[in-house]
Amino acid sequence: MVVLNRRYHFAASHRLHSPRLNAEENREVYGKCNNPFGHGHNYTLQVSVSGPVDAATGMVINLATLDAVVHREVLDRLHESNLNLDSGLFDDSVPTTENLCIVIFNLLKSRLNGLPEAPGAFLKRIRVEETASNFFEYSG
Amino acid sequence: MVVLNRRYHFAASHRLHSPRLNAEENREVYGKCNNPFGHGHNYTLQVSVSGPVDAATGMVINLATLDAVVHREVLDRLHESNLNLDSGLFDDSVPTTENLCIVIFNLLKSRLNGLPEAPGAFLKRIRVEETASNFFEYSG
Amino acid sequence: MVVLNRRYHFAASHRLHSPRLNAEENREVYGKCNNPFGHGHNYTLQVSVSGPVDAATGMVINLATLDAVVHREVLDRLHESNLNLDSGLFDDSVPTTENLCIVIFNLLKSRLNGLPEAPGAFLKRIRVEETASNFFEYSG
Amino acid sequence: MVVLNRRYHFAASHRLHSPRLNAEENREVYGKCNNPFGHGHNYTLQVSVSGPVDAATGMVINLATLDAVVHREVLDRLHESNLNLDSGLFDDSVPTTENLCIVIFNLLKSRLNGLPEAPGAFLKRIRVEETASNFFEYSG
Amino acid sequence: MVVLNRRYHFAASHRLHSPRLNAEENREVYGKCNNPFGHGHNYTLQVSVSGPVDAATGMVINLATLDAVVHREVLDRLHESNLNLDSGLFDDSVPTTENLCIVIFNLLKSRLNGLPEAPGAFLKRIRVEETASNFFEYSG
Amino acid sequence: MVVLNRRYHFAASHRLHSPRLNAEENREVYGKCNNPFGHGHNYTLQVSVSGPVDAATGMVINLATLDAVVHREVLDRLHESNLNLDSGLFDDSVPTTENLCIVIFNLLKSRLNGLPEAPGAFLKRIRVEETASNFFEYSG
Repeated sequence: MVVLNRRYHFAASHRLHSPRLNAEENREVYGKCNNPFGHGHNYTLQVSVSGPVDAATGMVINLATLDAVVHREVLDRLHESNLNLDSGLFDDSVPTTENLCIVIFNLLKSRLNGLPEAPGAFLKRIRVEETASNFFEYSG
Repeated sequence: MVVLNRRYHFAASHRLHSPRLNAEENREVYGKCNNPFGHGHNYTLQVSVSGPVDAATGMVINLATLDAVVHREVLDRLHESNLNLDSGLFDDSVPTTENLCIVIFNLLKSRLNGLPEAPGAFLKRIRVEETASNFFEYSG
Repeated sequence: MVVLNRRYHFAASHRLHSPRLNAEENREVYGKCNNPFGHGHNYTLQVSVSGPVDAATGMVINLATLDAVVHREVLDRLHESNLNLDSGLFDDSVPTTENLCIVIFNLLKSRLNGLPEAPGAFLKRIRVEETASNFFEYSG
Repeated sequence: MVVLNRRYHFAASHRLHSPRLNAEENREVYGKCNNPFGHGHNYTLQVSVSGPVDAATGMVINLATLDAVVHREVLDRLHESNLNLDSGLFDDSVPTTENLCIVIFNLLKSRLNGLPEAPGAFLKRIRVEETASNFFEYSG
Repeated sequence: MVVLNRRYHFAASHRLHSPRLNAEENREVYGKCNNPFGHGHNYTLQVSVSGPVDAATGMVINLATLDAVVHREVLDRLHESNLNLDSGLFDDSVPTTENLCIVIFNLLKSRLNGLPEAPGAFLKRIRVEETASNFFEYSG
Repeated sequence: MVVLNRRYHFAASHRLHSPRLNAEENREVYGKCNNPFGHGHNYTLQVSVSGPVDAATGMVINLATLDAVVHREVLDRLHESNLNLDSGLFDDSVPTTENLCIVIFNLLKSRLNGLPEAPGAFLKRIRVEETASNFFEYSG
């Protein structure tokens, strides 16, 4: 099994504010990230797909196929968006990078596992980098 | 003369929308960056100060002094902010990275040139990196 | 005047071999880079455009315009090509990175200077990075 | 057990073309990477060795030893080469980065496992970065 | 379970010299790193904490909490220090990066596992980067 | 004229302490960098050479020539050294990165300007990066 890792970039804004916390708690937990008008990041998304290497093509999965899925399912929704207000993906959760990993993993898993052209390949891990100092990983 | 270059980071959101253009022109010029709820970036700010090297200290300017000025004048205002709505610096201009360079240069110039502890040092250039692919420079 | 810098990537192969040198001289000057079958690089191209900031748009030049020119004039010719055999640009010169800078500068200069939408903008500098350790710059 | 990770760089060219596919299929699967004259990359190779820390030296394996093995077995063969035509390692397979990982893993495994100076150390993983956006990993 | 990874930086000097080896062996094993006056590095420390995502906050652990622990336990001791002479942590071992990983893991483990505010989170892995070419990992 | 830029790496330790300042002043100016046992950095040295492109070779200066000069004059002296005690270059000045730029510029200038093989090439600029946040430049 070889693991293919592919990196994508998107820019988005968010505000960290939890409906399960009161105003003072929100301010204490999130600090300036709770500012009403939000702020933003350049996010780097790393998608890892594991699978056998096809004897004819020498590939785990064709990058063109992977790119098409990731653009359609993730980047077209999130790039240059406001995560809280535009995406429709954080109506019930806070758009922390932890939750962003889980949301993206769930968007991609069913679209990447068991493709006819790469039947043995599966989504192994999502990694989202929020800044040069912070990144998060989720493997399902 | 030696040039000292120091890099800082801040995260902010913005919406590109010009009051001098109509809605259709705004959409055409800025594309998705004109989305009503905005998006965001991790900005890297590079401040370049030029000056003679002090014979006693071996320094152009003490980094602790420079850091204090940049934090007070720039980062405390912009980090984790919405450039359009929080900063008060873009009431009459669009928060493109070009304009961000000019605004930051003007905030820092009078605070860094002619300091008693570094009388020959002066602000040489501001560079702002918006993404890994784009950066802008302004020298006054 | 603000300087806009934009980075692009392309992958290409080349063989360093000069028709003005004999076989032994070629081997001595270029070492393994003279190997008959060539080798390759991931090149990073940095295009710097200088100009005034438009009062209405806040831009030196629209990135969409710049991208279209660079893709059409440079990347479509060089990406995933063999510089010696595919590009038609090195029939009379050796595809060193020095010459690559000059060739790219000359391809872009007449296409970027004096555009109707950005009449004051001009191509200031081309930078080509051959590896993480080497990069070259040409300003015309 | 501590994992030591060491990064090396090499530049090479390749052409993606499979003898098990016809001309049209090759073009469809590999796109411009199927161009007859090939293209190239700066590859980064990351070698991961796992083992106990020697009580006297504080090391998993001496880097000088590791460097000598990697240079002799891998870099001397691949750096500034054409993977298809120079290396002799891809006579029966396509030089995709997936296959490059497997080939390098097999070249190094028997040379690094069970060395007298580091009897508990073993090759844990090979990672090859083809561009800043793509990397592949193989653990045997 | 989501893995949070956070990167920190510190600058320190060290001399590689083992009391269990004689002068000639030290010179042979460590080369120039055995120079009497030592040398130094910019180290990057990556701390990985694994845990469930809190339903109210959307976090594995609050970064402010993690930062406070890492600064107090590690960075205040090691940043701008001489590892051999200042830290008190290498009285019985050589300050190789392998041993640095183990020392830091042991400093942090009891302070991060089982915190009241993040009861399910635990220290998963320490990674220390000595240079751009070398990094080491320890998972206990 | 094309500018060739080449990057080198060295690791060294230093203590910032000026004989022209008393103990209290040294502590105030340099902070923890004044610690008696010193600390260290991974320095990146960028050497910029400007010159015409040779019509036969397509080069400003052969990298093998440049590498030999930089290794002999600079890296062999500074890599894995203590700048204060080993190098002999800071007997009369403080090893700040400002002074390091000037010292290296003066070591290289007479060795690179006016070489028979590259008569029009000259040392244009030295850049030394002390950390990912600080770098300094000197042009003579």
